Amino acid sequence: MPHHRSAFFISDRTGITAESLGHTLLTQFDSMDFKRETVPFVDTVEKARVLAQRISEVAERDHLRPLVFTSIINPEVREALRLDNIVLIDFFEAFIGHLELELGRKASLSVGKAHGMVNEEKYDHRIEAVNFSLNHDDGVKLKDLDEADVILIGVSRSGKTPTCLYLALQYGIRAANYPLTPEDLDSPTLPKILLPFKDKMFGLTIDPNRLHHIRSERRPDSKYASMDNCRREVNEAESMFRHHGVPFISTTHKSIEEIASTIMHKAALGRKF
Amino acid sequence: MPHHRSAFFISDRTGITAESLGHTLLTQFDSMDFKRETVPFVDTVEKARVLAQRISEVAERDHLRPLVFTSIINPEVREALRLDNIVLIDFFEAFIGHLELELGRKASLSVGKAHGMVNEEKYDHRIEAVNFSLNHDDGVKLKDLDEADVILIGVSRSGKTPTCLYLALQYGIRAANYPLTPEDLDSPTLPKILLPFKDKMFGLTIDPNRLHHIRSERRPDSKYASMDNCRREVNEAESMFRHHGVPFISTTHKSIEEIASTIMHKAALGRKF
Repeated sequence: MPHHRSAFFISDRTGITAESLGHTLLTQFDSMDFKRETVPFVDTVEKARVLAQRISEVAERDHLRPLVFTSIINPEVREALRLDNIVLIDFFEAFIGHLELELGRKASLSVGKAHGMVNEEKYDHRIEAVNFSLNHDDGVKLKDLDEADVILIGVSRSGKTPTCLYLALQYGIRAANYPLTPEDLDSPTLPKILLPFKDKMFGLTIDPNRLHHIRSERRPDSKYASMDNCRREVNEAESMFRHHGVPFISTTHKSIEEIASTIMHKAALGRKF
Repeated sequence: MPHHRSAFFISDRTGITAESLGHTLLTQFDSMDFKRETVPFVDTVEKARVLAQRISEVAERDHLRPLVFTSIINPEVREALRLDNIVLIDFFEAFIGHLELELGRKASLSVGKAHGMVNEEKYDHRIEAVNFSLNHDDGVKLKDLDEADVILIGVSRSGKTPTCLYLALQYGIRAANYPLTPEDLDSPTLPKILLPFKDKMFGLTIDPNRLHHIRSERRPDSKYASMDNCRREVNEAESMFRHHGVPFISTTHKSIEEIASTIMHKAALGRKF
């Protein structure tokens, strides 16, 4: 018997939905070892048959029925995955009947709209948001800040850049960021250039120990990375946030997804695409 | 009667899973107008009660029961959302019993592992991938290319930068990109500097009409944006891909998610975090 249980996330498009809910469910059984594989773009009966055959072979090898999470929309394609030695967990079929009843109409069974390119205008807006966030990373460009949806501020390495990029890619948000330098932190007031944009500012803070660790990877034994300096910078940045009533969150124990969705929620921002 | 149907995506953490499957299901009813709201971090019975009250008020105003998609794990928190005038579509409850039976153990009911920060090492790897992709954007840095997991090549504005950032953020992939300039395209052979990395290259191409449109937004009436030039560059880039057997895809009708997951699939890359 193998130590693991095989798990497949199968989709007719990107696999993002099947993976996302499948992972959430599997994390509930964290004492178990799952061997995971995502298979996107299974959009014909033929592809589904070939895949079902391969999963059957895994079942025989494992002497255990693999878990197959699927969000495939076309019923015939889904049906090709329904074999005796496969545990099929069908996200689509489980809910679509209920929704059809509730909404009083049939599902259109069209594929690929959730993560597909719905229209060029929205797509362009999203790409513009990515470009805006890239151009306004790390305070490199301070003009056009009035076009930002949100401006993240925080000390170096507090998580501003990945959060801005995630906000742009995931939500179409134009997210600028400005690093608080030791000079900025000498005074508890916001850098002058930022004052007009106080209402769209959001602060990131971080545990000084974690900051010390992150900075030490980049510049070991520097003043920049020293525990004392990290503690001082974080304290001063938090004082500045409080002084101006800028909302802020700690990134220490949060994933990029959590930081970004917290900002979306607290700053009452809406998805822009 | 309102024209829309209200739909809520409710989660005890980021809301990504509930939104992802909820959107997939709703796109099946594309003739209808949904008023969507995502509510993350509903992690106590008290928060759920306040929210349920608010949704009830929406129900009365709409004279229609709102659709409530939830991935909340804690059963007591979920229960607080179960009101008569709410259509509850419970992604967690629907499958967890089946999985418990199949796996022969109880769900741990722990929250926030799917999109939360699982461990610092994986988190650091992901941030490193983002930094790598930023540092190797647009061919600005050509050393360390041997550390790249994939190198995207294509003409200017074919979608390389957002795809690289998405690959880094979503999959922890170190994705460099190199823009094929008109000089590079004069010859059908790859730029010399890229030759050692042929096996990890992936080409992006794009419909010349769409490229012309995108470039015209940036530099109207330039030679760069002209239809003739776009057509020529795209032809030459595709010839180069074919000459060297570099796999390539068209980004024209694809979302960033679709481009990225196609590359993951075709280049047989695995998630790195």
